[in-house]
Amino acid sequence: MNDEQTTTASLPPSVDLYDTTLRDGTQQEGISLSVGDKLRVASVLDTLGVGFIEGGWPGANPKDTEFFARAAAGELQLKRAVLTAFGMTRRPNAGAADDPGLRALLEAGTDIVCLVGKSDSLHVTQAVGTTREENLRMVADSVRLLRGEGRRVFFDAEHFFDGHRRDTSYALDVVAAAAEAGAECVVLCDTNGGALPEDIDRVVREVVARLGGASQLGIHVHNDADCAVANSLVAVKAGVSHVQGTANGIGERCGNANLMSLIPNLKLKLGMEVVGDDDLLRLTTAAHELAEVMNLSVHPHAPYVGHAAFAHKAGLHVSALAKNTDLYQHVPPESVGNSLRLLVSELAGRSTVVLKGKDMGLDLSDESEAVGRILDRVKDLEHLGYSFEVADASFELLVRQETGVFAEFFRLESFDTSVSRDADGRITAGATIVLLIDGKRVEADGEGNGPVSALDAAFRTAINGRYPHLAAMHLADYKVRILDPGSGTGATTRVLITSTDGEREWETVGVSSNIIDASWKAMQDAYHYALVHGGS
Amino acid sequence: MNDEQTTTASLPPSVDLYDTTLRDGTQQEGISLSVGDKLRVASVLDTLGVGFIEGGWPGANPKDTEFFARAAAGELQLKRAVLTAFGMTRRPNAGAADDPGLRALLEAGTDIVCLVGKSDSLHVTQAVGTTREENLRMVADSVRLLRGEGRRVFFDAEHFFDGHRRDTSYALDVVAAAAEAGAECVVLCDTNGGALPEDIDRVVREVVARLGGASQLGIHVHNDADCAVANSLVAVKAGVSHVQGTANGIGERCGNANLMSLIPNLKLKLGMEVVGDDDLLRLTTAAHELAEVMNLSVHPHAPYVGHAAFAHKAGLHVSALAKNTDLYQHVPPESVGNSLRLLVSELAGRSTVVLKGKDMGLDLSDESEAVGRILDRVKDLEHLGYSFEVADASFELLVRQETGVFAEFFRLESFDTSVSRDADGRITAGATIVLLIDGKRVEADGEGNGPVSALDAAFRTAINGRYPHLAAMHLADYKVRILDPGSGTGATTRVLITSTDGEREWETVGVSSNIIDASWKAMQDAYHYALVHGGS
Repeated sequence: MNDEQTTTASLPPSVDLYDTTLRDGTQQEGISLSVGDKLRVASVLDTLGVGFIEGGWPGANPKDTEFFARAAAGELQLKRAVLTAFGMTRRPNAGAADDPGLRALLEAGTDIVCLVGKSDSLHVTQAVGTTREENLRMVADSVRLLRGEGRRVFFDAEHFFDGHRRDTSYALDVVAAAAEAGAECVVLCDTNGGALPEDIDRVVREVVARLGGASQLGIHVHNDADCAVANSLVAVKAGVSHVQGTANGIGERCGNANLMSLIPNLKLKLGMEVVGDDDLLRLTTAAHELAEVMNLSVHPHAPYVGHAAFAHKAGLHVSALAKNTDLYQHVPPESVGNSLRLLVSELAGRSTVVLKGKDMGLDLSDESEAVGRILDRVKDLEHLGYSFEVADASFELLVRQETGVFAEFFRLESFDTSVSRDADGRITAGATIVLLIDGKRVEADGEGNGPVSALDAAFRTAINGRYPHLAAMHLADYKVRILDPGSGTGATTRVLITSTDGEREWETVGVSSNIIDASWKAMQDAYHYALVHGGS
Repeated sequence: MNDEQTTTASLPPSVDLYDTTLRDGTQQEGISLSVGDKLRVASVLDTLGVGFIEGGWPGANPKDTEFFARAAAGELQLKRAVLTAFGMTRRPNAGAADDPGLRALLEAGTDIVCLVGKSDSLHVTQAVGTTREENLRMVADSVRLLRGEGRRVFFDAEHFFDGHRRDTSYALDVVAAAAEAGAECVVLCDTNGGALPEDIDRVVREVVARLGGASQLGIHVHNDADCAVANSLVAVKAGVSHVQGTANGIGERCGNANLMSLIPNLKLKLGMEVVGDDDLLRLTTAAHELAEVMNLSVHPHAPYVGHAAFAHKAGLHVSALAKNTDLYQHVPPESVGNSLRLLVSELAGRSTVVLKGKDMGLDLSDESEAVGRILDRVKDLEHLGYSFEVADASFELLVRQETGVFAEFFRLESFDTSVSRDADGRITAGATIVLLIDGKRVEADGEGNGPVSALDAAFRTAINGRYPHLAAMHLADYKVRILDPGSGTGATTRVLITSTDGEREWETVGVSSNIIDASWKAMQDAYHYALVHGGS
């Protein structure tokens, strides 16, 4: 049963989505984007159907200034979204017209500017070090200057919810000043991320009453109380029609409101046309693409777009799923471009193995003994540290072995790898491999940046054109996990390898107390999977 | 400013916390706990102050049956929490007294049983394959049997919110049947995790009205719409006084409601004495301990307990933080046993470096040139793939080098490592290292499970008692990250090493296109940090 559960009578037909991945999102620990990365992120966001993309803070750092220059020069061709620039109200006790920050904002050349100002009296006096009255003038002057230069202005009321709690009338005065000066949208920010849904609901309703319809209202929340998505939805229900968030919820500390959760919640559950049906189909792909550009990975358990978001492990569920998938999923995974996954683990039952077999084109429904052997081997290997839940290709090879539909294309006899660092700091890595191919013993050497790439090179030399389509295959990702970290470098190592031939990806696993041996085991499965599926 | 923002007039003074980490939590992909692990998890949960710990499903799998047997035999000594067993209502069209599932539940010997039953009519007819009337009898008979055997019964109404939407009166009949048969608490479950806060609010209020005070009400939600924590809080506000969740929010698909967020939200923001002040101080430590037993890591951006939950990167924030830390955090990090962290990155300003120096006992306030050099080196090294945000010890060595308070205890001249796998599948790993120590050239060999442990062994042989306290130091964790995964095994590798001497931990980083070289660089920093801090 899918969720279309909410009375939508009191809601607007849609709300504006405002993405701040490139500005607030990049405050996250470990994220550092080049200008090229930022341009690519903006292009991917545009395909998602968000209304506004905040490109950065021109003038605050050279990278963002360059981003806007290159965007304006035609390097960024947004099809649907509008690019906005972010900046701060003018400095205290100075004119707005010659404020360097506001000038940089104007020079960025966007039609829309998102201007942030203080709305918490303590921030005004302590962080900025000015008076409450001067801060009101800073807000009004800055909005007016930008309006006078023909810009549309969105006003981010920073720390609004904390400010409202500390000094309600001052916080309301700040947003009223922005609205009166011409801000088209006033965005209420929970900058420290501590608000709960009931706070958001109450305060937003109060602002709606105070501002009347003088300005559109928006919401911008952080996730420090683990309520960012819910808080955004509660705000929409209370009257805001502009919602800010970031791709995959990235952002400083605990992140911002996650657009990958907000978009499907708004569209599938509240029935708002925030993006088109086809845009929503791209959600999962876009989440992973964006993570990749930012050198992150999407959390496997992330709602809607995570690899495990629609994964089922329990034996009981799996047999019921076979009857009606809607019984155990809140939305159809295909609607957001994700898919149902059944997990193989020692908890898995026979029905899981039979269903997985079906996925790979093998009918196991009459192979009771083989299914039993498969479950036993999975159990034994998981005891050693293997995990097949994320290594479908290794699992498939295991199934093929136990059901007799497996040809061994090669067999390893031995390998040697070495890495040396000489007195000049030069690093060399080499490997020798001995394979048995069609009964013949083949030895080959290889070199590489590291021991694993040297071993890969040696393998490819040994195979030497025998299986030409292996040339198209390469490693897309290589992950190392220490299973018993307490024992440090002597611990069991699990290597997961993602391989690709440019069209599809497959994952394999290897486990050993030796990292090179674990890597080889995962590589060996990856080659075999390619050979099984590519012919020879 | 800390959050004590909510009117608590309509709230009860506290609510019961019910942990289901060991049952529903272990449904998460990749989690497989031994009975020993489960006993340890229960002990750690007990120190947190939760009221109830669900140990598992006796009879459903042998591990859980063994867990309850060993707990009853005295292997689990809970100081405060009450252990409960989980099970299902009797089979259709059969007696409750001889139902094998209910018998296993009774044999587990707990005072409290949590019984799950269907409350969605479609699950009754399709998944169970019985009639609506028989399901009501299954619920009532099972509760009565357990009550007759002297058990207290909590009733989990599975798929309650979906069921309420599909057939409101039937869903309400199910919970009424459980309450009338003697269930002390009726727990409303959003099993598929798709509900939004407004749904929870509306439906809980309806159940409160229907049941009157016949039974305590509880809430059990999943996070598929990214609202699990908020939904639990909304349910409390609407009238439930029993809240179920899991440690770190683990659970199938997108996880369960996260107790590590719920506990501080309930205590610090709603003012409920769900746990004691001292218990709350253990929250961060417990979160990490529990993750470790489960072979997971706490998400760095997890609210309250994540490594980055109180981490600040922006230069602007950092200078304001120096004035008043409460300006930029929603609760004091110390209240949950976490701490404020300032991040060093290319975005960091001089004030961050000066503050970090203070943390390590170095006064850099007058070292303007050195601070400039430090920022330049951080920028250059981050360009190469280093990340100091999580490698405080490597950053400290860099600061010491640039400020002249660094002694080089040893210098690497060269190393060789090799890994071989022979035709019998035997793996050997060896290393040779040449160090310069006090101007003397020292060469040594080592063996290990893998190339890195062999190199570590060779290093320790070369040092040969010169710095005896290094013997106490060992690696606590070793993480490998591929920085440009697109280039596969030829990509840049970043190694992060956590070292410990049994008392404290420190993190170091190394980057290279060769995994062994990257590992050496991180190890080298780890040794030096130990030597700087341990004397020689």
